[in-house]
Amino acid sequence: MSKLPVMEIFGPTIQGEGMVIGQKTMFVRTAGCDYSCAWCDSAFTWDGTGKDSITQMEPEQIWDELKRLGGNGFSFVTISGGNPALLKNLDGLIKILKQNDIKVCLETQGSKWQDWFFQIDELTISPKPPSSGMLTNFEILDTILDNLKARTMNQNVSLKVVVFNDEDYLYAKKVHKRYPDIPIFLQVGNEDSRTTDDQVLISRLLDKYQWLIDKAMLDDDLQNIKVLPQLHTYVWGNKRGV
Amino acid sequence: MSKLPVMEIFGPTIQGEGMVIGQKTMFVRTAGCDYSCAWCDSAFTWDGTGKDSITQMEPEQIWDELKRLGGNGFSFVTISGGNPALLKNLDGLIKILKQNDIKVCLETQGSKWQDWFFQIDELTISPKPPSSGMLTNFEILDTILDNLKARTMNQNVSLKVVVFNDEDYLYAKKVHKRYPDIPIFLQVGNEDSRTTDDQVLISRLLDKYQWLIDKAMLDDDLQNIKVLPQLHTYVWGNKRGV
Ligand code: SF4
Ligand code: SF4
Repeated sequence: MSKLPVMEIFGPTIQGEGMVIGQKTMFVRTAGCDYSCAWCDSAFTWDGTGKDSITQMEPEQIWDELKRLGGNGFSFVTISGGNPALLKNLDGLIKILKQNDIKVCLETQGSKWQDWFFQIDELTISPKPPSSGMLTNFEILDTILDNLKARTMNQNVSLKVVVFNDEDYLYAKKVHKRYPDIPIFLQVGNEDSRTTDDQVLISRLLDKYQWLIDKAMLDDDLQNIKVLPQLHTYVWGNKRGV
Repeated sequence: MSKLPVMEIFGPTIQGEGMVIGQKTMFVRTAGCDYSCAWCDSAFTWDGTGKDSITQMEPEQIWDELKRLGGNGFSFVTISGGNPALLKNLDGLIKILKQNDIKVCLETQGSKWQDWFFQIDELTISPKPPSSGMLTNFEILDTILDNLKARTMNQNVSLKVVVFNDEDYLYAKKVHKRYPDIPIFLQVGNEDSRTTDDQVLISRLLDKYQWLIDKAMLDDDLQNIKVLPQLHTYVWGNKRGV
């Protein structure tokens, strides 16, 4: 018995951000985070407001639920949180997914290493910039990215930094400079993860996206980068579970 | 002397679509196309309206112009058209780019093979669906994708199909079924590549994007796909040269 705290399971939908943007995927969101970012868009996974939705599930149960929702229509599962890297026993779920030929995508802020990182097909490390209120432990981050040098050609690793302001932008540059060989994604921050006025939200997000593009395009320190929005907010606004 | 017909050179900007969406890149747009798609958004490259902008340029001149515009701020160049695969002598430009450690991205509809395809880092083959009014020669497409099986691990190849309607969608499925091992991108068609009302444009494009997502998510034949918009139209509307 090795249960996992599951917050929600949904899909199929598209991955709205990062290295596999646009990918058809199922989502498993785990509960719990060691951070408390000021602008966390999934604070319900750790701030107590969602605690009634947490279910302790065996990997087999999670797989059953994925099949019930997604049938035979998917080959990709994204594990998100919270911080799924808190869960040492996540390897049970990863194993079942692999046995069923499912590609696995996972995102974590890089505050903790797990040996099962090597089994993730598309691994995003997303250290949090100053606006989050969190402080990056670069020694741990160094260890994680150093360990990952032993990965196989089949595993993709990327960095992703959310940028809300100039200070965050400088932080993103610092991260890129420290790990120049890891593909890096700059992502526009969503300053208002609560509004339900989608029109206003999109127009603000697009302004912010253009601001970030303009900065990065003029910046010789950022030669090889990708700048992306969160596509799902364009399509579904701030709605959850899509 | 091996000059190339160049329509425009611009950047740095982001790649708005496909396999390297979000990538900081320079663009070189070549003139001429063997197709005449009904909804071509760069018809000025082949319909005569842009003929005064075509400059015959040596690869060295193109490189000089790229450096003049992009300085030391880029490491990625996208060659688009028209159909750049019409130009046998494009290898001269590719060679200079490679010598300068530039990654090269290129898109072609797949109507013609060139040996220099092997030198493209990120190659997109985008066969045109029925709404284009064009007819795909699947024998040629077979040959191209068969040849590309000899590519190295460093070269990425993808298929991209623009979808305007149900018939196009069925065509995309057919393409995916024929080449199941090649990553495929479905891209929302822009039905109005002339309007200057960006608000209306974005709202229409988002509706269409959601329509395409909804179809693909429910479709068991499309397990492993990516569904993407053209990000640049969200940010810049139908403006050219950005
Ligand atoms: S690390 Fe992620 S889940 Fe945790 S608080 Fe920050 S944004 Fe939220
Ligand atoms: S193949 Fe491309 S450039 Fe040529 S007509 Fe069609 S859309 Fe336009």
